[in-house]
Amino acid sequence: MTGDWEAPTHRDVAAARDRLAGHAHQTPVLTSSRLTAQSGAEVVHFKCEALQRSGSFKFRGAYNAISQFTDEQRRAGVLAYSSGNHAQAIGLAARMLEVPAVVIMPDDAPAVKVDATLGYGAEVVRYDRYAEDREEIGARLALERGMTLVPPYDHPHVIAGQGTATAELHEVVGPLDVLVVPVGGGGLLAGACLATRALAPQCEIYGVEPEAGDDGRQSLRRGRIVHIDTPTTIADGAQTQHLGTWTFPIIQREVTDILTVTDEQLVAAIRTLAGTMKLLVEPTGCLGVAALSQLSLTGKRVGVLLSGGNVDLVRYGRLLVGDAR
Amino acid sequence: MTGDWEAPTHRDVAAARDRLAGHAHQTPVLTSSRLTAQSGAEVVHFKCEALQRSGSFKFRGAYNAISQFTDEQRRAGVLAYSSGNHAQAIGLAARMLEVPAVVIMPDDAPAVKVDATLGYGAEVVRYDRYAEDREEIGARLALERGMTLVPPYDHPHVIAGQGTATAELHEVVGPLDVLVVPVGGGGLLAGACLATRALAPQCEIYGVEPEAGDDGRQSLRRGRIVHIDTPTTIADGAQTQHLGTWTFPIIQREVTDILTVTDEQLVAAIRTLAGTMKLLVEPTGCLGVAALSQLSLTGKRVGVLLSGGNVDLVRYGRLLVGDAR
Repeated sequence: MTGDWEAPTHRDVAAARDRLAGHAHQTPVLTSSRLTAQSGAEVVHFKCEALQRSGSFKFRGAYNAISQFTDEQRRAGVLAYSSGNHAQAIGLAARMLEVPAVVIMPDDAPAVKVDATLGYGAEVVRYDRYAEDREEIGARLALERGMTLVPPYDHPHVIAGQGTATAELHEVVGPLDVLVVPVGGGGLLAGACLATRALAPQCEIYGVEPEAGDDGRQSLRRGRIVHIDTPTTIADGAQTQHLGTWTFPIIQREVTDILTVTDEQLVAAIRTLAGTMKLLVEPTGCLGVAALSQLSLTGKRVGVLLSGGNVDLVRYGRLLVGDAR
Repeated sequence: MTGDWEAPTHRDVAAARDRLAGHAHQTPVLTSSRLTAQSGAEVVHFKCEALQRSGSFKFRGAYNAISQFTDEQRRAGVLAYSSGNHAQAIGLAARMLEVPAVVIMPDDAPAVKVDATLGYGAEVVRYDRYAEDREEIGARLALERGMTLVPPYDHPHVIAGQGTATAELHEVVGPLDVLVVPVGGGGLLAGACLATRALAPQCEIYGVEPEAGDDGRQSLRRGRIVHIDTPTTIADGAQTQHLGTWTFPIIQREVTDILTVTDEQLVAAIRTLAGTMKLLVEPTGCLGVAALSQLSLTGKRVGVLLSGGNVDLVRYGRLLVGDAR
């Protein structure tokens, strides 16, 4: 994935849709009369990426990127750093495209995520995150084995792939007035911007991140990418330290605002989605729902991306029970 | 709902689909490559009635029944006995059709279910299940207020409504080879039989009930409706004591067998559906998934009905955590 790239556009999202057709799920779009009533909106549509292959939208970007490898790149394989949804997405997309995959994960990554990645057939290389530098390990593997790195969010092919979720949403329900999207590194949000400007030009777009990790909002305010320390939040998919050099300019250009929510609000949203919509959504996936009450939605047609559902079941069960052990 | 009825057929299911169009959700049909691989089937399709309005398939039968009321019946209102999914379904369907509703519930019904039914605008009449006879209360209300009783499963209009779930499934994925359906009073299963014989004549149909409440299996074996004591099982939607006089003949004619599963197998299925498919499914809704390992499915195209998702979140969370308090 080295080389000279151009900033992705809605045409790249359309091309990604063709590549993903028949390989990614077209995930359901669901409504809840209760949540619509609470929001004051005309209707709220939920795009259920927790029901995507590998359990999150990340599959879209991973598949879109690997499917553009040259034959030589395919033979040598794909490399990723991740202890989260990107790892599983790369593992599954690589298996489907018959490309060898190595995922570099810290020693202390949750067993459930390591197992899921191994289950998709990827090789997992562990490292000591306090003693070793993962970039060095990655660079060595790339050199020794000629493998190609696919980053979790900051690449045009990844952004274009993530944009397909939003493209499907606008097409299924018609152009929306407001779109609300979780933000970690900004891949899903940047892709949502590209798809929305083409399919619903008047739609306002909001990103949502954890209050403890508001680097995105700070970046919008200051007009440059702000770096923060790894934030402490239950939204583990949004524990990113900064937006990307590809994602930020798109977000800066297209997004109305980035909102923040607390972990308590995320827990309430998890329970709402479980109780009302019967969906198991991971904390990061609930960011959009948790922020709805901050927006004036009266009479609006609203879309919310539920980005993923990968969470340890015992941990999730404890959130429902109200036991935060 | 008194009067002379004829046994329902697939034509009644088709008519119910017309009545439900635009009112019930056409629920998603999802697949899981992991669950398909585990089953040995060519593919397993899951029909997600937990995502139906009111949280279960019961909305289909309730709406189909009430929408056939005469003007006089509509004015007087609908009456139901239920502490479960039928209560919520009647509440919501009655509200949508602007028909007054009374639901008779025991004093000790879970607060969450009473609240949900009240939330849909139904009047809830409580009774002491140890001192009072609910049929007597119902008969008095029917007499005094001219209300029409809609039973939870044993009525042709209810059966035909429930059949629409299976009709949608066959139509979306093409005719199936094997269909697996939860059984309480047999409304969902009888409806599934009618739809399947019309749309997938060669499809084998299996019912699944809790081991502790195997009245359906006993009834099939003996060729008559067997009554049992209220069974003790976490599958509260299948704590019925007997099949119905309308549901049994259809089931007897069309079903290959009725299987049983233990509560432990249901808990495992709940965790599988949560972890793999990100769906919150109530214990009764998991009956079909829990029975899959008993069937020889090699190379078959299989459908499983996930019937509902209404469960107290704290209780559900404890099942995930493994804490059976």
